[in-house]
Order: sequence, then C-alpha cells, then structure tokens
Amino acid sequence: MRKAKLNVVKIGGNVINQQQSLRSFLKLFASMEEDKVLVHGGGREATTLAKALNVETRMIDGRRVTDGETLNIVTMVYAGLINKRIVSLLQAEGCDAIGLSGADANLIRAVRRNPEPVDYGYVGDVKNTSVNSLQISSFLSDGLTPAICAITHDGAGQLLNTNADSVAMAVATAMADRFDVTLTFCFEMPGVLSDPNDASSIIPHITPDIFMQLSESGIINAGMIPKLSNSFKALQGGVSRVIIKNHLDLLDEGVGTIIEL
Amino acid sequence: MRKAKLNVVKIGGNVINQQQSLRSFLKLFASMEEDKVLVHGGGREATTLAKALNVETRMIDGRRVTDGETLNIVTMVYAGLINKRIVSLLQAEGCDAIGLSGADANLIRAVRRNPEPVDYGYVGDVKNTSVNSLQISSFLSDGLTPAICAITHDGAGQLLNTNADSVAMAVATAMADRFDVTLTFCFEMPGVLSDPNDASSIIPHITPDIFMQLSESGIINAGMIPKLSNSFKALQGGVSRVIIKNHLDLLDEGVGTIIEL
Repeated sequence: MRKAKLNVVKIGGNVINQQQSLRSFLKLFASMEEDKVLVHGGGREATTLAKALNVETRMIDGRRVTDGETLNIVTMVYAGLINKRIVSLLQAEGCDAIGLSGADANLIRAVRRNPEPVDYGYVGDVKNTSVNSLQISSFLSDGLTPAICAITHDGAGQLLNTNADSVAMAVATAMADRFDVTLTFCFEMPGVLSDPNDASSIIPHITPDIFMQLSESGIINAGMIPKLSNSFKALQGGVSRVIIKNHLDLLDEGVGTIIEL
Repeated sequence: MRKAKLNVVKIGGNVINQQQSLRSFLKLFASMEEDKVLVHGGGREATTLAKALNVETRMIDGRRVTDGETLNIVTMVYAGLINKRIVSLLQAEGCDAIGLSGADANLIRAVRRNPEPVDYGYVGDVKNTSVNSLQISSFLSDGLTPAICAITHDGAGQLLNTNADSVAMAVATAMADRFDVTLTFCFEMPGVLSDPNDASSIIPHITPDIFMQLSESGIINAGMIPKLSNSFKALQGGVSRVIIKNHLDLLDEGVGTIIEL
C-alpha cells in the first residue's frame, strides 16, 4: 500500500521574529494540501526577553544553557507567545492548527542531557522513539495541523528546552513508519550556500561525501553542521526527502538544497 | 439515554502561584475518574512579569486592560508558563493532559469587547456557542484531558485575553448537551463566606434570591459577583451542578457552596 504524503516543516528563528515574513510563510504553509506538521524554534525573542529581565543568556556551541529562570523564559516565548501567534495566524488562513509542546498529550518525551562534560541545565535530547507518532497521526486524521514548539518534558513533571531541528528530525523520522515524509528546513537563506555573502551560491545537492568535504574545508558554517547531521539521520531513519530552503520557496519544487544519502 | 458525567474544574489565581498548593490540587484533579476538563487563569504571575518589564498594569472593575504589550505578557504567562507547568505536572500524575488556548483547534472563538464605554483593549467575550464542544468531546474520547487557559482568538488572527471564569462557564454550558456536567470553581477559600475573615462562615447554598440579598447587603465582595452570575448562567444553560469550594476539597462531596436555581 502506498503511504500518504506528510510534510514536516521546520521554521527557524529569524523568520519568526519578522511579523510580515512569518505571515507570508504561514500563508504558504496553510495552503499545502497534504497533511502537514509545523515545528518551530524562536531563539531571538527569548534572548530579548531574557535581556529585559536581566537574565544572562549563555550559549555553548550554539546551544542555550538553560537554568530555571531561562527555562521559564523559553517556555513563555516558545510555547506561549510564538506558538499561539502562529496558531492564530494559521486559523485565520483556514488551517485548523493546534499548538503543542512535547508535554501536551505526552507528544515528545525527552531525556535531560548528561551534565558531564558540559551542564546545559534543563535541556532535553530526543530520539525518534521519543515521539508519540500515534497521537500525531490521530490529530492529522481529525483534520488538525500540529504546530509543535521545541519544549519537551521528561514525563516526571520537568519541562525541557530542546533543539528545534532535532525535534523536527525526530518527528519526521517517527512519522516515516506510516507516511511518505518530506522534511523541509525553512529559513531566511535560499539554501546551503558555498559563500554566505552570495545568495546565488546555493549548493543544490549534499551527500555525506560532499558534507565531509564541505565541513573539512570550512565552507559551511558551524550552525549548519548539526542541521545537516540531523538531515542524514532523518534519511537513514526512513524519511523520504530532506530539503533546506528559503521560507518563501516552500511550495516551489526543485529549489534550495536537497540532502541525499 | 443517560449522559456520561463530565467535571469542568476552574482553578484560580492564588492557588496557581504557590507551587506546592498547585501540585496538591493537580494530584487530586488527576485522580478524578470521570472525564474532566481544567480551565485556569493566572493573574498574579502576569502582574509580576509586567512589573519586571515596566509595563503598567491597569485594572478596571477587576478586569485587566490589555494593550498589545499586555496581551503578549498574558499569552506568555497563561498559555506558556502556567499551562505547560500544569500539563507537565498532570502528565507526571498519569493524567494525559493536553494544554490548549482558545485558538488551538479553534476551540473557543471570542468577540473583542466593544471599546465603548470602556476600552479594555484586546479582551474577548465568550458565549457557550463560542465553544467547539465537538472537538473537546473528541479529545475526551481519545483519552485526553484538556487543560484550557483563558486566551482565546477572534478567528481572524487576533488573540484575546478572556476572563477564566467566563471561559469555564462557556465550556461547561457548551458540553452540557452531551454530558451531565458538574462545574466546580476552586480557590483558596473554603467556599463563599458571609464573613471574609471567618473561614467557618461558609454559605452552603446560594439561590438567585439569596444572591440578591447578599449583594444588596454588601456581604459578598465585588470579585464574587461575576463568579455567581456565571454560575447561574451555567445552570440556566443546562449545567447540572455548580460548586464553589477550596481546591483541596475537590474530591469531597457536600462541602463548599452549592449554587442552585
């Protein structure tokens, strides 16, 4: 039996910060006819709120160190402000969105990261087995579109801050048993670039071999490396397609960077 | 056919602020065997955050005037911080909670309050017809327990701050078509008191006649009047029972104040 198509779309930080940019993206997302799941982060606004509250933001290797106060801030910003803004805008576009954290309906259960060698605080790691794919399928068959923020829980009452790319990867992989899944990472750039200052330098295909060459030569930046590692993991886990592209190209096929094994 | 029982429980501000108090209440709530829906507010923490951000809190007749900045604050606190804290704690108690605002799954569509004679800003009013009772029933039959915060939407992309008692009343009334509904307002007092300084002065029953006498004589305070009005509206709308009681008495029958027509 042919599997039904499912789009798992991750939308990144900078698009979320710009109201008009976000609206344009959500209009495109809402118009996708196949089943779909949105995963979002929201880094910048959390940093802005932390600054206003005089809570220090500490990042190690691009990951936010999350003490109790910072966890409250990211929960407010990701699960509250951004998630509900996205849901209300999708509803206005006729898309019956439901905003969820990983705690809701026990959707994503993460494991708090080992404090050795670096203590990131209330940060959780996910695997594809962390995802309640049965519940996501049930929402989809009820006509609902999950909009998932990157706050998860440990099942024992503790919320955990989780990397949004990793959440998107885990959700896409978990859903691949039942669906023909396309995972799309959307952001403000037109794809993975060989020259960050030249928007026309899109690398159209990246295989593990090309990835090795690009990282060794320092052509792709540090922020892109975990996204590409997540992409390969998703493909190895059964996801059919992984694409990295501009948020306004969401509906256009064949643009951006296609990740292949 | 006999209708199945449904408990709609509203939990108020002061209980939510105290971690231990909230945990004790949620343990009791999780242990209720019948279908249940939780509705929560969260006033104090929103005021604390507003103060930390130097955003002025303006209240008129006990209702928060909600400009754009204040709407962001209440969305962060109610739909983010408090809602996800409640959901993760219920999950830890084995209750498969799902945290929702009125925007999620188009659960509660409110109408922005007329700016005349008083402009409350982004404040929404609800009726029982505002509630998507079919969707709530569907969550319940999937084994999920909705935990609803008092943020709603207008269906056109605007979130609205809404009174949590009114949300509880509207949800209870809307569900009364399908269920035998008990609506319980929980707070830190043991019931409606004739003397606010004497916890033993519980008024065991309040009918519309008694309500008239109590409000005319000034015995019940201004904050209790809309709660009681909402209670009568719920009973007129088909809700079977309305009770106002202490949060730790949730499972004890016959305690607190029973509202009757």
